[in-house]
Amino acid sequence: MRGLVFLGVFPVGIVIQKFGGSSVADAEKFRRCAQRVTEAIAQGDQPVVVVSAMGDSTDDLIQLAESVAEGPDKRELDQLLATGEQVSIAMMAMTLKASGIPAVSLTGQQAAITTDDVHGRATILAIDGSRLQELINRGNVPVVAGFQGVTRTGDITTLGRGGSDTTAVALAATLGGRCEIFKDVDGVYTADPRLVPSAQRLPTVTYEEMLEAAALGSQVIHPRAVELAKKYDVKVRVLHSHLPGFGPSNEPVGTWVVSESQHMEARVVSGVVVKKDVARVSLRGVTNRTGIQSEIFSPLALAHLPVDDIIQEDDGPSTINVTFTMDKRDIRDASPIIHRVAQEINAQAVRIDTGLVTVSAVGAGMRTSSGVAARLFEAMASAGIKVENVTTSEIRISCIVTEADGQRAAAAIHSAFGLDIPMPQDRVTESKPLNSTISALQ
Amino acid sequence: MRGLVFLGVFPVGIVIQKFGGSSVADAEKFRRCAQRVTEAIAQGDQPVVVVSAMGDSTDDLIQLAESVAEGPDKRELDQLLATGEQVSIAMMAMTLKASGIPAVSLTGQQAAITTDDVHGRATILAIDGSRLQELINRGNVPVVAGFQGVTRTGDITTLGRGGSDTTAVALAATLGGRCEIFKDVDGVYTADPRLVPSAQRLPTVTYEEMLEAAALGSQVIHPRAVELAKKYDVKVRVLHSHLPGFGPSNEPVGTWVVSESQHMEARVVSGVVVKKDVARVSLRGVTNRTGIQSEIFSPLALAHLPVDDIIQEDDGPSTINVTFTMDKRDIRDASPIIHRVAQEINAQAVRIDTGLVTVSAVGAGMRTSSGVAARLFEAMASAGIKVENVTTSEIRISCIVTEADGQRAAAAIHSAFGLDIPMPQDRVTESKPLNSTISALQ
Repeated sequence: MRGLVFLGVFPVGIVIQKFGGSSVADAEKFRRCAQRVTEAIAQGDQPVVVVSAMGDSTDDLIQLAESVAEGPDKRELDQLLATGEQVSIAMMAMTLKASGIPAVSLTGQQAAITTDDVHGRATILAIDGSRLQELINRGNVPVVAGFQGVTRTGDITTLGRGGSDTTAVALAATLGGRCEIFKDVDGVYTADPRLVPSAQRLPTVTYEEMLEAAALGSQVIHPRAVELAKKYDVKVRVLHSHLPGFGPSNEPVGTWVVSESQHMEARVVSGVVVKKDVARVSLRGVTNRTGIQSEIFSPLALAHLPVDDIIQEDDGPSTINVTFTMDKRDIRDASPIIHRVAQEINAQAVRIDTGLVTVSAVGAGMRTSSGVAARLFEAMASAGIKVENVTTSEIRISCIVTEADGQRAAAAIHSAFGLDIPMPQDRVTESKPLNSTISALQ
Repeated sequence: MRGLVFLGVFPVGIVIQKFGGSSVADAEKFRRCAQRVTEAIAQGDQPVVVVSAMGDSTDDLIQLAESVAEGPDKRELDQLLATGEQVSIAMMAMTLKASGIPAVSLTGQQAAITTDDVHGRATILAIDGSRLQELINRGNVPVVAGFQGVTRTGDITTLGRGGSDTTAVALAATLGGRCEIFKDVDGVYTADPRLVPSAQRLPTVTYEEMLEAAALGSQVIHPRAVELAKKYDVKVRVLHSHLPGFGPSNEPVGTWVVSESQHMEARVVSGVVVKKDVARVSLRGVTNRTGIQSEIFSPLALAHLPVDDIIQEDDGPSTINVTFTMDKRDIRDASPIIHRVAQEINAQAVRIDTGLVTVSAVGAGMRTSSGVAARLFEAMASAGIKVENVTTSEIRISCIVTEADGQRAAAAIHSAFGLDIPMPQDRVTESKPLNSTISALQ
């Protein structure tokens, strides 16, 4: 059943509005973001803005650093990179003030975002929301630098990949608000529209679905931020930074990312994700004994070569076949390791196939529905597509097919689960404020 | 007498090394600055580096701000501009580390530079030098952002024009060190070498001489920083950022700026300064009465039109002539005000002359020497130059002459006081450390 409905009414309250680097690349784009803030205020919301560094400025700063030092010191690189977001907050606050909105910019430090001291990929330890709350209470829009924090000793840190999303969700958790992530797409889709032209915008997805999709390479919000939103039950909306956040009947548009408990009934399949550049490695006729898996996979892990799905099946009374997938681009480095291991463990055969893709159906409703796999395999059979391998998780079914079949497989699954039809916008439940100081956020 | 000698030996200890924006405009220039730091360490000094924003980046940031807001909010502009120096400190620290020097960058806030909250032209209230001292004690080179500080409530401020010089001197005062200001010239000269080709580098000048020269438009160190150096008796050396700070016999080069008490004997005339674009305004036949000066000058002050020298002389039993100079470029705005005032006070005549320059001899030794003015006027007479007006201060004699005579007048005075001959390098006395926390610096 599609057209899921949230309980309650559209929430009014504190909303964290996060704009990424491409949304604030120039003066005109800052002004468009300011319109989103104006709209939120008009709706009765109290916005808190989080911004990333302008356009490609983080890359420019990294290049600048590399002009004086190879592998620059991590503390100093954080000190340097943090200026990118500091420029953005000042620019955004100026833009808002020029539109008559009282705004105050805050660095990570000024917003009291305390992190550990792991420079370059710090973890938020605590946020003291009191200054933010005070600014909000006095009618100001705080504009907070994403991606950065400060250690207890006053050193500036950055949070690493997905850092600004994480900042936004952490602030929402601290202030008891909801979170809006503005992108250059208007929400999360049932499939990549470049692969499946009939892909539809999802009114809602669950945290778990977003995490599964991210693991498969389809990343709208950084999984770290999704994990945090899940942990603190922060409602997140994904929407377009240059389009109004409300439809013609004043209904909120975009995609809500929420917990399963906030769904009346979970969608069986929410979307289809295609992962390209998949290589499959098979070690056949391996004598099964305690620790054999570790003998196979430890050398790859030591070489920092990530492995995706693993399938182990019996090949005889005491032998097994071990099959796993990894990124095709890692095969050049992995191949000598794999062949060495195969020799050491006396595998009867080694086979490495490239030119494969993984097509996955993701849906939180799989937990409680039966027959999902059967319906999927039927669709593949009808389309005449040979399924090379199958792996599943609680809310995902993945098929490995040839590159040539990938797009048709995605379309077949997409259609089989009725994802080609536009979905009505859902409503969400009211947010509840948390305490203004929280600790050990992540 | 030239060739003044400082008491004592060349000091070893904490040295604040300040590099301006043009000295850190690119990676290659950062590396040259790092050489200055390496040299200081090799001398046995403990350097603390102060840097300005790279090249024209402050101007670029101002332009960026103006792309979203006319007359941008001053707090937000400070938040924005402070990123310029933050980029520089990180870059400098990385460059130093790449040369094997343990360096730690510090923003104004991290260096505990507390200011008032007058954004855009804040005054330093206090510096807590404890973190800096701790870093130095552990063998690190702190790299401090010039031009910026933080209010007691954590807002970032900038110090306005000459801010980085001020930061450097204030840190020297706090840490009890001396101060090196690196420029793209190798010191302070007896005259502008473009006007007087025989100009010589001065081994020493006094704070007072620097202040007089700055008031006349010859600015090597910002007068605000010189005032602070004078107040806290901080020895300042001006030297070239891309040349070694020590000569062939290991003697320090450049120009020392010191107090008069540190001279064995003050130079009678240390230099000649030419101020161009001078306009002279004369109000003749003004009836003298209480408050007449205020009636003349208040309207100009209200219009923010600065007046330089003022000469008042008797014109009859109860009438006076009031003559003053101002920048020629202000005359367009000043002229209507001057004519209106002349009418109100019933002046018999108003005369405005442009095409003039002020040629000044500056020297702390004038205080105790007689016959300086006579020697100067003799030089002007021998050169056949008509002196239009004369004004003096305790350590300065200024002549107004026509633009055409300016350069010859400067050369004549320069030669008359023996400034054409190279001067031997002086030595300076040992610095004494102050308390590590000082208040009300300025």
